Amino acid sequence: MSTFGVTLKKVVDDSYQIEIGFSLEEKLVADLREGLVGKIKKFAVITDSNVKELYADKIAWLLGREGYFVQVFSFPAGEKSKTRETKALIEDQMLTSEYRRDCCIIAVGGGVVTDLAGFIAGTYGRGVPFINYATSLLAAADASVGGKTAVDTPLATNLIGLFNQPKKVYIDIATWKTLPEREVSSGLAETIKHACMADRDFFCYLKEHMTEILAIDREACEHIAEKNCQIKYHVVEKDERETGLREILNLGHTVGRAVETVSDYRLLHGEAVSIGMMAQMQLSKKLGYMTEEEIFEVRELLRSAGLPVEIPEYIDREVLVKKLYTDKKVKNGTLRFVVQKGIGEIAEFEDGVFATPVAEETAREIIFNM
Amino acid sequence: MSTFGVTLKKVVDDSYQIEIGFSLEEKLVADLREGLVGKIKKFAVITDSNVKELYADKIAWLLGREGYFVQVFSFPAGEKSKTRETKALIEDQMLTSEYRRDCCIIAVGGGVVTDLAGFIAGTYGRGVPFINYATSLLAAADASVGGKTAVDTPLATNLIGLFNQPKKVYIDIATWKTLPEREVSSGLAETIKHACMADRDFFCYLKEHMTEILAIDREACEHIAEKNCQIKYHVVEKDERETGLREILNLGHTVGRAVETVSDYRLLHGEAVSIGMMAQMQLSKKLGYMTEEEIFEVRELLRSAGLPVEIPEYIDREVLVKKLYTDKKVKNGTLRFVVQKGIGEIAEFEDGVFATPVAEETAREIIFNM
Repeated sequence: MSTFGVTLKKVVDDSYQIEIGFSLEEKLVADLREGLVGKIKKFAVITDSNVKELYADKIAWLLGREGYFVQVFSFPAGEKSKTRETKALIEDQMLTSEYRRDCCIIAVGGGVVTDLAGFIAGTYGRGVPFINYATSLLAAADASVGGKTAVDTPLATNLIGLFNQPKKVYIDIATWKTLPEREVSSGLAETIKHACMADRDFFCYLKEHMTEILAIDREACEHIAEKNCQIKYHVVEKDERETGLREILNLGHTVGRAVETVSDYRLLHGEAVSIGMMAQMQLSKKLGYMTEEEIFEVRELLRSAGLPVEIPEYIDREVLVKKLYTDKKVKNGTLRFVVQKGIGEIAEFEDGVFATPVAEETAREIIFNM
Repeated sequence: MSTFGVTLKKVVDDSYQIEIGFSLEEKLVADLREGLVGKIKKFAVITDSNVKELYADKIAWLLGREGYFVQVFSFPAGEKSKTRETKALIEDQMLTSEYRRDCCIIAVGGGVVTDLAGFIAGTYGRGVPFINYATSLLAAADASVGGKTAVDTPLATNLIGLFNQPKKVYIDIATWKTLPEREVSSGLAETIKHACMADRDFFCYLKEHMTEILAIDREACEHIAEKNCQIKYHVVEKDERETGLREILNLGHTVGRAVETVSDYRLLHGEAVSIGMMAQMQLSKKLGYMTEEEIFEVRELLRSAGLPVEIPEYIDREVLVKKLYTDKKVKNGTLRFVVQKGIGEIAEFEDGVFATPVAEETAREIIFNM
C-alpha cells in the first residue's frame, strides 16, 4: 500500500463589476472591445422568448456589427423552462453551431435566464466565461450577486446547479419599463426581503417611494438596484458557499419555494416569496422575535407592491407541508427556518446559526392558518 | 450609471490523497470514521451494473455496519450510460431517497462511473463532496488525477462536465483481477500514453514487464498505478484548467475520441486511444518528430498490451474526419493535434504551445491510410 499526495492549493480571484444604469447595450459592447473576456470572438446569447426580440436580438446585432461571431439561443419564457431538458437542448444547439471552449455566454433576461445560462456556462466544455445582462428587477435583486445557478427538477427547485461567478453583470433599468406589472411586483419581493433582513432605513425608503418604484422612476430604481447588490454582497462575501450566514438569504424561501412548486408555477417566484415571508413572520412571532404590529407593517408593504400575502385557495396545504422537506436547509430530516427579528434584522439562534429547527406540527399549523 | 464592485478573492485548497493498494474497502471505512469528509453521515454509492455486486454492495454494507445511512445507485455498465439522462436519473433517485446537501457521493467503478459520479457530485445541491474508489486500470490512469468529470452527448464526448476534485482516491489493484482481458488492455492505453509522453524509462519498464502486468502481478501493477499518478500530476499541477501544457494529456485523443464516437462505442476508450496514438505518430513523423523505428517500438508495445493499432474496417473514414471537429482543441474551426517527440517527450511548437494546427487534408490522408 502506498499513498500519493496531490497538492492543489491556489488563489482564485472571481471578482467582478456590476454596472447599474439605463440602456447598457453599447456599454457591454465597449467593455468586450476593451477585453472584458480577453480575446474571445465567439458569443452565445442565451435568452427567453419574451426578451429575445426586446433586447437579446439587439445585443446580438451590436456584437455582429463589431465583428464577433454571435448566435441567439432562446427558450420559452417562464420558470417551467428552467430544467435539465432546456439546458441539454441549448447545449446541443450550441454544439451543432460548433461552439467549443473558446466562447463566452451572455445571458440576457431575468432570473430564469441568468440561472440557466450561468449553469450552462459552468459545464459547457467544463466551463466557459459568462456575462449577465439582467432585464428584470428580480434578476437585479437575486441573480447579480451570489453566483448561484441552477435548474429545477420535478422533485425540487434549484437543487441541481453550481456556484459560478459571472465576468460582469449589467443591470439595465430601462428594461424594467417593458416588464408586465406582475413581474415588477414579483421582483420587489426579493427587494423587500433584503430590507426586512438587513436594513430598516431601506425598508422605510421602500414604503415612502413605492409609487415611484412601480412607475420605474430612474432615480428610485437605481437606488434599489444598488441597495440590493450591497445588502446581498455583504452577506455573500462572508459566506460564499452558503455554510452559515448565507442562509439568511433564504428568508421567506422555505415556504416560498415549496408553494411555488406546488402552485405548478402559477405563482411567480416573488409572489411565492411574499407568501413565504408571511409564513416566516408568523413563526417569528411564535418564537418571540416579531410583534403583530411589525408583521402588519411588512404585510402592508408587500401589499402596496402588489404582492399576495396569503396562500391561494387552490393550494393543497397538506401537499405543501410535505414539499417543505425538499428545502436545502433540511438537515437529518428536520425542517429549518430563517426568521426575521423585528424589521431589518435576522434572528441568530446560536453564534453563527441563523436557521432554527421547526417541528412539522408548527409548520403545518402556520400553513393551515394562512 | 453607477458601478458596484464584487470582490471575491480567496485561497482554495483542493489537495487530496491517492491510496494505492490491494483491497482497500476497510481502509475507506476507517478513513471516513476518522473524519475524511467531516461529520457527514449520509452516503450515496454510485456504481454500474458490473461493479455493483462485485464491490459496491460490499462497500455499502461496510458503511451500513458502521452506522451510516447508505444507498447504492447503479446504472447499466458502459460508456453509453455516460449521458445527461443517466445523470438526471440518478439525481432523481437521490432526491426521492431524500439526499440533500449534507451527503457525500462515493464513486465505485471505472472511468465511466468516476466521470459521471464526479459530475453529479459537482452539481447536486450545487456541490457535495465525493470520493473515487477506482476499480479499473483506466480509472487509475485517467480518473485519479486531474479533476475532470463529464458526460457524453450525441454530438461529442466529454464536452459537458466540470472540474471537480475528489476528497480522496482509492486505487484498488485487487479489483483489476476481475476485469475482462479487454478492459485491462484498454486501461493500459492511457498508461502507454503517459510513458510515450513523459518517461522513456517507464516505457522500457512496460516493455519488459508486460506479461506480469497482464497477469495483474501486484508489484508491477502498484508500480504502474503510481507512475500514472506521478506523470499525470506533474502535468496537471502546472496547468489545472487545461489552458496550455495540460493539452499534452490529449496525446492520441483527437482521433481517439472521434473514432470512439464513430464506432458507437464498439471500441473501448483505451482501444480508441491506441488507434489515436498511431494516428498522431504518423503526423509526428510527417512533422519530423519521430522515426519509423520509434513508431514501430510504440506499435509493438500497444500490440503486446492487446490493443488495436489500425482503424477498424467498419469505420466510415469520411465521417471520422468530420467528427474530428468536435474535439475540444479545435480553435476557430482549425484542427489541432498534440504529437510526441521520439519516445518520452512531447513536441513543443512554440514556447508553451503543445498543439499544432493541422490541415484537414493532412488529417484525412493519415486516416485514409490507416
